[in-house]
Amino acid sequence: MLIVKKFGGTSVGNKERIFRVAQRCIADYQKGHEVVVVLSAMGKTTDELIAKAREINPHASKREMDMLLTTGEQTSVALMAMAMGALGVPAISLNAFQVQMNTTSRYGNAHLKNIDTDRIRRELEQHKIVIVTGFQGVDKYDDYTTLGRGGSDTTAVALAAVLHADACEIFTDVDGVYTADPRIVKNARKLKEITYDEMLDLATAGAGVLHNRSVEMAKKYGVKLVVRSSLNESEGTVVKEEVDVEKMLVSGVALDKKAARISVMGLKDEPGIAFRLFQILAKNNINVDIILQSIGRDNTKDISFTVDEEEADEVVALLEENKTRITATEIKCKKEVAKVSIVGAGMMSNPGVAAKMFEALYSSGININMISTSEIRITVLVDIKDGERAMNAIHDAFGLAE
Amino acid sequence: MLIVKKFGGTSVGNKERIFRVAQRCIADYQKGHEVVVVLSAMGKTTDELIAKAREINPHASKREMDMLLTTGEQTSVALMAMAMGALGVPAISLNAFQVQMNTTSRYGNAHLKNIDTDRIRRELEQHKIVIVTGFQGVDKYDDYTTLGRGGSDTTAVALAAVLHADACEIFTDVDGVYTADPRIVKNARKLKEITYDEMLDLATAGAGVLHNRSVEMAKKYGVKLVVRSSLNESEGTVVKEEVDVEKMLVSGVALDKKAARISVMGLKDEPGIAFRLFQILAKNNINVDIILQSIGRDNTKDISFTVDEEEADEVVALLEENKTRITATEIKCKKEVAKVSIVGAGMMSNPGVAAKMFEALYSSGININMISTSEIRITVLVDIKDGERAMNAIHDAFGLAE
Repeated sequence: MLIVKKFGGTSVGNKERIFRVAQRCIADYQKGHEVVVVLSAMGKTTDELIAKAREINPHASKREMDMLLTTGEQTSVALMAMAMGALGVPAISLNAFQVQMNTTSRYGNAHLKNIDTDRIRRELEQHKIVIVTGFQGVDKYDDYTTLGRGGSDTTAVALAAVLHADACEIFTDVDGVYTADPRIVKNARKLKEITYDEMLDLATAGAGVLHNRSVEMAKKYGVKLVVRSSLNESEGTVVKEEVDVEKMLVSGVALDKKAARISVMGLKDEPGIAFRLFQILAKNNINVDIILQSIGRDNTKDISFTVDEEEADEVVALLEENKTRITATEIKCKKEVAKVSIVGAGMMSNPGVAAKMFEALYSSGININMISTSEIRITVLVDIKDGERAMNAIHDAFGLAE
Repeated sequence: MLIVKKFGGTSVGNKERIFRVAQRCIADYQKGHEVVVVLSAMGKTTDELIAKAREINPHASKREMDMLLTTGEQTSVALMAMAMGALGVPAISLNAFQVQMNTTSRYGNAHLKNIDTDRIRRELEQHKIVIVTGFQGVDKYDDYTTLGRGGSDTTAVALAAVLHADACEIFTDVDGVYTADPRIVKNARKLKEITYDEMLDLATAGAGVLHNRSVEMAKKYGVKLVVRSSLNESEGTVVKEEVDVEKMLVSGVALDKKAARISVMGLKDEPGIAFRLFQILAKNNINVDIILQSIGRDNTKDISFTVDEEEADEVVALLEENKTRITATEIKCKKEVAKVSIVGAGMMSNPGVAAKMFEALYSSGININMISTSEIRITVLVDIKDGERAMNAIHDAFGLAE
């Protein structure tokens, strides 16, 4: 078997942890498996490097930021190879240039284009554990790039895809994917399996275990993903195309407290107004989530939508600037909101799911602000103070604790 | 003019220093010069990385050590490019892979083979200051290497050679090359010029301003070297083939307190014994300096030689192991010795120099242990307690303070 194992920054944060990860990889190696390890930068290294850069130039070029940040993973992989060496196992570290992990030139948020597998294959054939820097690439100019948020997961999945790995294990600080965040819902249950689509919708809905991009890539190339704990040996959750167990109506409930609702009031009821509004946001790379249009006073209409809380101020500023162009009379922003979502592949063939969710909220006296649905997801916007209670109520209503 | 400027780790040790170096380079850039900057890792970074590695694996593979250490210079050059950016000047950082600074595969102590100038030329043509990582290279396997001691100086000189630079300025914490270490000889004088050969002999004799390898390379390719202070604007010392001023009899006095004398006693007076002895040392990469053979008792001979103080214990252990093979009866080691050397291109044509040096030592009541000479250098071994006094006596005798 060829296994790709990815460990995040916390898992390699100090000497003891580095050795724990090394031993874990060696265990697979000694079973006769080929092992490729993908690592992030140690602990808070990336944050520290960013702080150092900001101190020197708050508007440093992204090309130079990536040149700086890529030293972080290079440090991790070299130290890991040394740790495995100390344990008597042949290992070699490779960075993005040595692998030839080719990406686009969008520094800070590059996309993988292709990965040369020659060097990795050659090292595996020599019975080495191969340790690859996550998060980074090189572009056609031979400049370093970074892959943006969740980048190391993407590296791991991409490597698993091109190497036709039997599994791609993503080690995190949680045991796997749960029916709900166990810190909020006490009787949340770990899922044995989940489909790519469910995982994608859960990620979008704020369940932070895996980043969207890596799940999308896993789905595209059929990479069997396993989400496991770096702290214990428990089995984790398998993410794949079809789950073997009977499809559950709902596989998880997610809560996202980092939403903000923007309301644009008094828009003229003319064609093209909504287009203009959302074009402004798209041009500025603002992701818009739930959208709701309602009728305002005097032949006008109101449009509300949710954005990332962090981007809310920027959105308000952008819209205030363009107030006349979009014919708005007032722009409001509410940050004290949360999104609660249920996700389940079984939802498609079961029409009663939404009703059941709303009933659970009604019974708990929770007011719904906005609603949005996809094929396998239903999301509602509630007041932030109701968020955790809503999550528990829904979790109970669908009997997710089993 | 194309100028290569090299700054050591101390010169880029913190934000303020980085900006000071940036401004210094920008000053040349704004005069219309093309500027290539070579940097070492910041402050104690390399030592810290080595310590981190030792903690994990005291016998880490050199290949992985180089993978780790090369992150140091990459951090320096990225931050420097950001600093120049903050000052409004276009700059780009390049590491050994981006330049294609090709070396042998002797990790930890690689030699430069060839340097691709394409990328640097292209960036210079776009009116950028180009900032290159010192000390590092890549080998034919695309693995990182480091150049060993004085490596960043070597990088700078090599770049100056291949780019046909008009000058290669090496910035240090001293003003230039002095007739003697100003901390020991109060009236030591800064030299305006010195020849490559004199500089080489001074470096060998323990004057630590420049590393041998970089001076040798400068000589080979006729690179005009300038040793300057990173702390002030003084002119420094020019190192070149021929000095314009009248050749001085002696241009400098150097003191090396890090010597040790090894004496191997009672060797059989047979052919091949000395060969065997020095072969053992050569195989273990031990550099031997002054060698003296004398007649011992009962038809035996004694051989004494000096080595680096740091290697003395290893040498003694090696020789004790091979005691019977080399027919030695006793091995002695004395660490409380110092080498005092005078260097001067004018020495070749002036036979009285040695006598004058010995007279100065005699007048000061200093005993000479061993003597060694090259074409332009005379070195004597004295007791360590006499070292500084010997240096001053010689400095005075040759009137080096002018």
